[in-house]
Amino acid sequence: MANFPSDGMDVNTEINTSGFGTCPLPISDHDTVQLGHGSGGQMSRELIQDLFVWAFGNPLLDDLQDSVVLPAVASDLAFSTDSFVVDPIFFPGGNIGNLAVNGTVNDVAMSGATPRYLSIGMILEEGFSLVDLKRIVESIRDAAAIASVQIVTGDTKVVDKGKGDKVFINTTGIGVFEQPVRPRPDRIRVGDHVLISGTLADHGMTILSKREGLQFEMPIASDSAALNHLIARMLDVGGEGVRALRDPTRGGVAAALNEFAETAGVGIELEEGSIPILPAVRGACEFLGIDPLHVANEGKLIAVVAPEVSEAVLSAMKSDTLGAHAVRIGTVTSQTAGMVTMRTGIGGQRIVDMLVGEQLPRIC
Amino acid sequence: MANFPSDGMDVNTEINTSGFGTCPLPISDHDTVQLGHGSGGQMSRELIQDLFVWAFGNPLLDDLQDSVVLPAVASDLAFSTDSFVVDPIFFPGGNIGNLAVNGTVNDVAMSGATPRYLSIGMILEEGFSLVDLKRIVESIRDAAAIASVQIVTGDTKVVDKGKGDKVFINTTGIGVFEQPVRPRPDRIRVGDHVLISGTLADHGMTILSKREGLQFEMPIASDSAALNHLIARMLDVGGEGVRALRDPTRGGVAAALNEFAETAGVGIELEEGSIPILPAVRGACEFLGIDPLHVANEGKLIAVVAPEVSEAVLSAMKSDTLGAHAVRIGTVTSQTAGMVTMRTGIGGQRIVDMLVGEQLPRIC
Repeated sequence: MANFPSDGMDVNTEINTSGFGTCPLPISDHDTVQLGHGSGGQMSRELIQDLFVWAFGNPLLDDLQDSVVLPAVASDLAFSTDSFVVDPIFFPGGNIGNLAVNGTVNDVAMSGATPRYLSIGMILEEGFSLVDLKRIVESIRDAAAIASVQIVTGDTKVVDKGKGDKVFINTTGIGVFEQPVRPRPDRIRVGDHVLISGTLADHGMTILSKREGLQFEMPIASDSAALNHLIARMLDVGGEGVRALRDPTRGGVAAALNEFAETAGVGIELEEGSIPILPAVRGACEFLGIDPLHVANEGKLIAVVAPEVSEAVLSAMKSDTLGAHAVRIGTVTSQTAGMVTMRTGIGGQRIVDMLVGEQLPRIC
Repeated sequence: MANFPSDGMDVNTEINTSGFGTCPLPISDHDTVQLGHGSGGQMSRELIQDLFVWAFGNPLLDDLQDSVVLPAVASDLAFSTDSFVVDPIFFPGGNIGNLAVNGTVNDVAMSGATPRYLSIGMILEEGFSLVDLKRIVESIRDAAAIASVQIVTGDTKVVDKGKGDKVFINTTGIGVFEQPVRPRPDRIRVGDHVLISGTLADHGMTILSKREGLQFEMPIASDSAALNHLIARMLDVGGEGVRALRDPTRGGVAAALNEFAETAGVGIELEEGSIPILPAVRGACEFLGIDPLHVANEGKLIAVVAPEVSEAVLSAMKSDTLGAHAVRIGTVTSQTAGMVTMRTGIGGQRIVDMLVGEQLPRIC
């Protein structure tokens, strides 16, 4: 541990799988998770050492104590947890593994913090394919490398067949503040601009289509991605003018903006014509009668920014692959405080409400 | 948040439920978890605000952002995660809620850190009783108060009926180092004493008996408890002489000591006659043909200590309710390096091995 640099700067920022060699856990096509893999005995140790440590290994994780000791940091900490139960576990654009990494990385990053450490807690169902588990573990490793976070501790439990569903993953993240800005919805002011980093509803409609076996003319895929590097660019140019950030996951853009409006005591007015939606996703939403504003995204962010930095932040977003289609979609107003409204294409105005219950279960 | 003291000293150290008032979520006997409770919409918000925030509320949690901002601390951090899938969820001596708090508190504390913050991630099964959920939430609150930790962030997911099992809970904890000692198994030396804080196998045999519907003459109960205050007493008097600490959960004392012996490259010799086991638990183990050394404990610790502080540490342990039956059970030797052996009552010696697979699934 003495050799571990506390600045975290040597963490890979691109995928590098060449150094991992062959997984030492011999897995054949029909091998499955057994109850013994969660026992705390030798089968557990083999799974941990030969699969998880092989994939995630770093000086902190390799220590394998009940808790990991992280080097002191001078700043406040951001701390966030999320459990992932998405069904299906593999889908166009990702799987439950990289979704779990990206989801918590994004939750940490929305506070203005730099995500640094993740824990991984897996609940496996007896009988789950070890080949699939290995694919998921590799996706976790790759997603962590892209997001520049280290997986430093973990836990594995196994439940009997029929008492879980293949795999559930909890990720909990710690971030540090490398810059002074703390985006928060209570910093939103009347006149601010509402930006979005790209197209809406890609993740949710992909999951729904895959689950229901729907085929569309143009393929659609989840947008699951880690947004922390994009946010760093935005904060660089926008500084304190970046008022609030949110990744519109469950509940979609509608839920995120309603929370903003309520917290800040302001109105938010969207321009329907400006909201970016891929034609195939729009078609799927129309076909199924679903409002894309209510659908989960997993690689998009909403930013509320001061008007004087709006152009610069938008340019910074567009310079990042994950913000290439960033656009302004609305304005913060003093009217209709606590509510989100939308100017429609035909000149009307409608209220954008939160859903009461469930539209798409197990979306993430 | 400005008013939140960063030293955490005002956290309750005893149960105080009088200040909580009535749960604002109206729950009748037949109310159950719905998919909508995990949607991110209004049902989710009600569950979070009216049950979780009501029970756990504190200035950090109340903020309800995607991640919580924790005040800077000067020390290294301890970080640990654990998912709990125990079956049954209610058992003599506890339930999945306080087990989940105590388990992660203990994992953090075994590194010598003071547990301070917890996240809670719940995976609920559609149809799970809201009355039972409320009982579990109240147990989480009470266990956190006893352990002097704050629940600062959380997440709730709902899976469709038959795809989970009532409730799974992930807890992830952060601790800070308030004293310089870092107990670790690689600090163990030949001649050290092996202490245990109390009787073995209470938790595991309680779960097994409850699950199998076994009745014994004397009732048995789980030992689930937070050991951080006990450890603070031990470190106060033992200092650097406290070489290593471990809570022998899954895999029991046998797995914990085998890991110690292997990591430190030493032998560990136990005295069978000194190992404390309640008569009722011993009877249950004999009846079922189970070695109590392999059974999970949830409120016990093993300490390896230098011989010169052994008496003082043992006294400190006995002065705490949770260590009242603490006793020395063995010695670290230079023989049989990497192995754990036991001197039996009749003068023989046997190897104490780790189990390969599963003895008792879903014990925690």
